[in-house]
Amino acid sequence: MSAVADVPSLLRDAVGEAGLITDPADMGRYLTDWRNAYSGRAAAVVRPGTTEEVAAVVRTCRDAGVAVVPQGGNTGLCGGSMPDDSGRQVVLSLDRMRRVRGIDPVNQTVTVEAGVVLQAVQEAAAAEGCLFPLSLGSEGSCTVGGNLATNAGGTGVLRYGNMRDLTLGLEVVLPDGRIWNGLRGLRKDNTGYDLKHLFIGAEGTLGVITAAVLKLFPAVRSRATAWVALPSPQAAVDLIGIVRALCGDRLTGFEIMSRQSVDFVLAHRAGVRDPLDAVHPWYVLVELGDTLPDAGLGGLLEAALEEAFERDVAADAVVASGSAQVAELWGLREGISEAQNFEGPSLKHDVTVPVSSIPAFVEQTDRALQKAVPGIRIVTYGHIGDGNLHYNLSKPAGSDDDDFRAVAEELARVVYDSTSSFDGSISAEHGLGQSKRDVIADYKDAYELELMRGLKQLFDPDGLMNPGKVLPREDGVARAER
Amino acid sequence: MSAVADVPSLLRDAVGEAGLITDPADMGRYLTDWRNAYSGRAAAVVRPGTTEEVAAVVRTCRDAGVAVVPQGGNTGLCGGSMPDDSGRQVVLSLDRMRRVRGIDPVNQTVTVEAGVVLQAVQEAAAAEGCLFPLSLGSEGSCTVGGNLATNAGGTGVLRYGNMRDLTLGLEVVLPDGRIWNGLRGLRKDNTGYDLKHLFIGAEGTLGVITAAVLKLFPAVRSRATAWVALPSPQAAVDLIGIVRALCGDRLTGFEIMSRQSVDFVLAHRAGVRDPLDAVHPWYVLVELGDTLPDAGLGGLLEAALEEAFERDVAADAVVASGSAQVAELWGLREGISEAQNFEGPSLKHDVTVPVSSIPAFVEQTDRALQKAVPGIRIVTYGHIGDGNLHYNLSKPAGSDDDDFRAVAEELARVVYDSTSSFDGSISAEHGLGQSKRDVIADYKDAYELELMRGLKQLFDPDGLMNPGKVLPREDGVARAER
Repeated sequence: MSAVADVPSLLRDAVGEAGLITDPADMGRYLTDWRNAYSGRAAAVVRPGTTEEVAAVVRTCRDAGVAVVPQGGNTGLCGGSMPDDSGRQVVLSLDRMRRVRGIDPVNQTVTVEAGVVLQAVQEAAAAEGCLFPLSLGSEGSCTVGGNLATNAGGTGVLRYGNMRDLTLGLEVVLPDGRIWNGLRGLRKDNTGYDLKHLFIGAEGTLGVITAAVLKLFPAVRSRATAWVALPSPQAAVDLIGIVRALCGDRLTGFEIMSRQSVDFVLAHRAGVRDPLDAVHPWYVLVELGDTLPDAGLGGLLEAALEEAFERDVAADAVVASGSAQVAELWGLREGISEAQNFEGPSLKHDVTVPVSSIPAFVEQTDRALQKAVPGIRIVTYGHIGDGNLHYNLSKPAGSDDDDFRAVAEELARVVYDSTSSFDGSISAEHGLGQSKRDVIADYKDAYELELMRGLKQLFDPDGLMNPGKVLPREDGVARAER
Repeated sequence: MSAVADVPSLLRDAVGEAGLITDPADMGRYLTDWRNAYSGRAAAVVRPGTTEEVAAVVRTCRDAGVAVVPQGGNTGLCGGSMPDDSGRQVVLSLDRMRRVRGIDPVNQTVTVEAGVVLQAVQEAAAAEGCLFPLSLGSEGSCTVGGNLATNAGGTGVLRYGNMRDLTLGLEVVLPDGRIWNGLRGLRKDNTGYDLKHLFIGAEGTLGVITAAVLKLFPAVRSRATAWVALPSPQAAVDLIGIVRALCGDRLTGFEIMSRQSVDFVLAHRAGVRDPLDAVHPWYVLVELGDTLPDAGLGGLLEAALEEAFERDVAADAVVASGSAQVAELWGLREGISEAQNFEGPSLKHDVTVPVSSIPAFVEQTDRALQKAVPGIRIVTYGHIGDGNLHYNLSKPAGSDDDDFRAVAEELARVVYDSTSSFDGSISAEHGLGQSKRDVIADYKDAYELELMRGLKQLFDPDGLMNPGKVLPREDGVARAER
């Protein structure tokens, strides 16, 4: 085993001068995440250009007993790609592995390296008349490798599924430095255990994903969008049922927002306005899509809204009449996260419950939060069609930031306890990373955690692959952290 | 450790008199598969009625060092649910676990026990105005547990995915007799390693699936079906592209058949006739579906066929004009497997290649097969939209059955070698079971097999859970078989 001090020079052998950063000034952007929420130190940042170089880096670090922290676009929300502050870990950035290795519109697949930015995949698909449907706020900078490592979600899940569902094959460098070539572009393959699903969503703790074969779909050629005002979350759930019954699987988006969420956007984002005259407690943005260019979606959407009015489900609605208005309505949805930052600390929670439990869940959670911090401003919004709410919290108006930060953990417990009581998940689409790795132990079955630890031990017996992430500390001891 | 002779009485304690069969006459139907292709012997057949009873059976057998063979509807094609002929294994049938535990049309999920027959799931969904889209020939007798264990496919995969894609949560009894409750009905859940995908497709070698939460979809309310004659597999691939471009994801079925396949059905099935006057080398059955009741699918399909004629892709076509004609066309497709049995031994191969490779793959494989056995009758058909062909073989007309059976292994090698040369899979939707467990070693990456063995060892260190299936024998020794 080499001394840790030798590691940079050994890594230089593995990736060459172009792939190694050891100057602290140059390492900076790899050692702080985009929100400045997480930061760390590193012995080096390596940027391999090929899968073989990734394997060489992993072997070098394993031989030296040094931990590796894989990193994509550095846009995660749970600190999953940040090193610790020991300065002894090595950050393995995939940002030089940006090749679209091939696209096959007949097979409806694209093969990409882990460092390809999500938007580049969407564009490569569009250039062939196809759709790659994963879509999220950070699509201009997040990478396929990160999308895979966190099983990313976003607004397209309702119709197309999570990243996991969009993946046919993977190439992975395992913690022993060997390369598993599972880059199969097959729709059906039943020849043993499905390994790819182990690495998807494992946040780099079982190996480094270096490439993937992803599914493509027929391009969507027409859309219709409506902004609907509703009296309650129950009405939103009822509206999903109405739209499903009348429009079937043309339903491609269904996003809910509380009035509080919309108020923040109206206050802090330039160029937006309330699409409706009166104030309503809840809104949904409904989107239909069709692969036909002239699919009569506007009429379908209006028929669904008609039914919703008749049944007293909807209070008011606007159907967007052109692409400018569509952008304006989506702006209200997409502006929430940023607008909330103007109102003090944003305590973010990303949870799922069964769609049918949403009304009772929101009522119970809101009540408990108001009891814990009277006047708290609850910024609830998200992909309600998937049962996924971003249950974000802002301090009572005019109160102290630090007082609010001081109760962050208590409020998270309120949200998670409520989620758990409805058989929900405390991380819908952001993963566990470092921020939720310990709290998960209180919400996940102990036997399931034991099975997860067994898998970690099997694939990474030395505990050198992204330690300190996903798996809870045992007995409060950071066993795997180095 | 108890003597094996005591096992039946211990099992009686676990499942009661009603759940235990030891009389050889009564065990018969559990010890021979539906085709009479595989048979075995058993110390007992146990039929637990609850998950807790399944766990008690597994613990009892583990303590006694006796192997357990989980069994669903006994309709598999690779012998995956058959015991060996030692008479020492215990068959664990899930056929008494037939409860639909709950259906939630708002959440679009159904929770079912492993012994529920696939058709009963389809019917439970339909009663709520929903669709459960898995559809296969044996749906009247195969069970959800078997569908999960083999990651079943069928004709709906093109639009809805394999069984794996239709599953949100699982309940599993592991080889140590503990119950993992992963019965979550969530569309998004990113809280650690995804365990369910390990058990799906593992053919009962990592544990016994006892229940599942499955996805539902909006019901399909209109369909259009066409029978299209084509000059070549390339034309079939071109036709997929045309239909996708014009009909988008309304395309729900795309099945190819060689003329040889159709000839066998016309010769041996009552009440079918050739829908077209002339003879053509290839046919596809195209199906469009829509969730709207009056969706104009007939016009769309005709427009796609028009384009196919103009581009010389299609030679002739019939659009079905009513449900009787739809049934007649599907009868030609569904009758192939049975009709082939009248022509001597059927050597069956279930393979996938990328859709774009189908034309070259068929040409290369047919040439090699004709070279190996001149005059061989090649019954190629299947789900070409997924790249999945059933490459079945019948002897040359008038030749000897045994001569043909004698070259079965050689011919399988021809098909598999060709499949492998196009980066395909030698088992698309039937699994490995016992029939393909050894041959897979020649087609799967050795490292991948090593990782599979590691997982088997982790979950089932005693090798008592469905031994002799999926994993290749090591060095020709049936290490795990008891």
